[in-house]
Amino acid sequence: MTIFTKIIQGEIPSYKIAEDHQFYAFLDINPMTKGHTLVVPKLEEDYIFNLDDALIADMMVFAKKVALAIQKSVPCVRVAMAVLGMEVPHAHIHLVPINKESDMSFQNPKLQLDKDAMMAIAAAIQANFK
Amino acid sequence: MTIFTKIIQGEIPSYKIAEDHQFYAFLDINPMTKGHTLVVPKLEEDYIFNLDDALIADMMVFAKKVALAIQKSVPCVRVAMAVLGMEVPHAHIHLVPINKESDMSFQNPKLQLDKDAMMAIAAAIQANFK
Repeated sequence: MTIFTKIIQGEIPSYKIAEDHQFYAFLDINPMTKGHTLVVPKLEEDYIFNLDDALIADMMVFAKKVALAIQKSVPCVRVAMAVLGMEVPHAHIHLVPINKESDMSFQNPKLQLDKDAMMAIAAAIQANFK
Repeated sequence: MTIFTKIIQGEIPSYKIAEDHQFYAFLDINPMTKGHTLVVPKLEEDYIFNLDDALIADMMVFAKKVALAIQKSVPCVRVAMAVLGMEVPHAHIHLVPINKESDMSFQNPKLQLDKDAMMAIAAAIQANFK
């Protein structure tokens, strides 16, 4: 079982943003910027491009809804998107609110936000999710 | 008219990978790695998350097919994906073959590949596109 499946199942706590029968979105615990969110399929598949067409299509539509909610909740110019897949073997899309290109870099030092700050961000994005 | 529309219409030459009635894929002229490809909708829309659900869903399925073709054509562990959208005001997905996480960074110096090398890469990916 991957760490993301444990999060989806509630075995590991997360700052949840949104969920439907196929996908789960939650705050990245080591955010590049405030509001950095991960979208994962409930299906355990390592490589995003191995998802079948219908599921990857639905995942993008779900990610779009999350991105629009982030955009309404966090001051930013854009919500950037990235998929690397070199660490956790469970496909996930990073959604990262950015003001400039260099805000989205996996080489950047991660933000340190306390639990209250993370809860407040999650609540705001959750409230804007449609 | 955006630079990508000019590329799609053939006004500006490109190393084309694939095309259908909605999307166009071509090699990034300033690649992070060999095989770095851009996928763009023919519709001129600046922000990817403003695309309607059907089009963004189709775009992801098209990008998946391109990614699988890249994976067959270029030695790499994964094809990473990124959308930033801070430069050209026409939505585009970066598909970047990577062997390690740091291969995909917009801060990395870009590769210099000559025309023959670019043509050879494009031909290989094109041949593997289904």
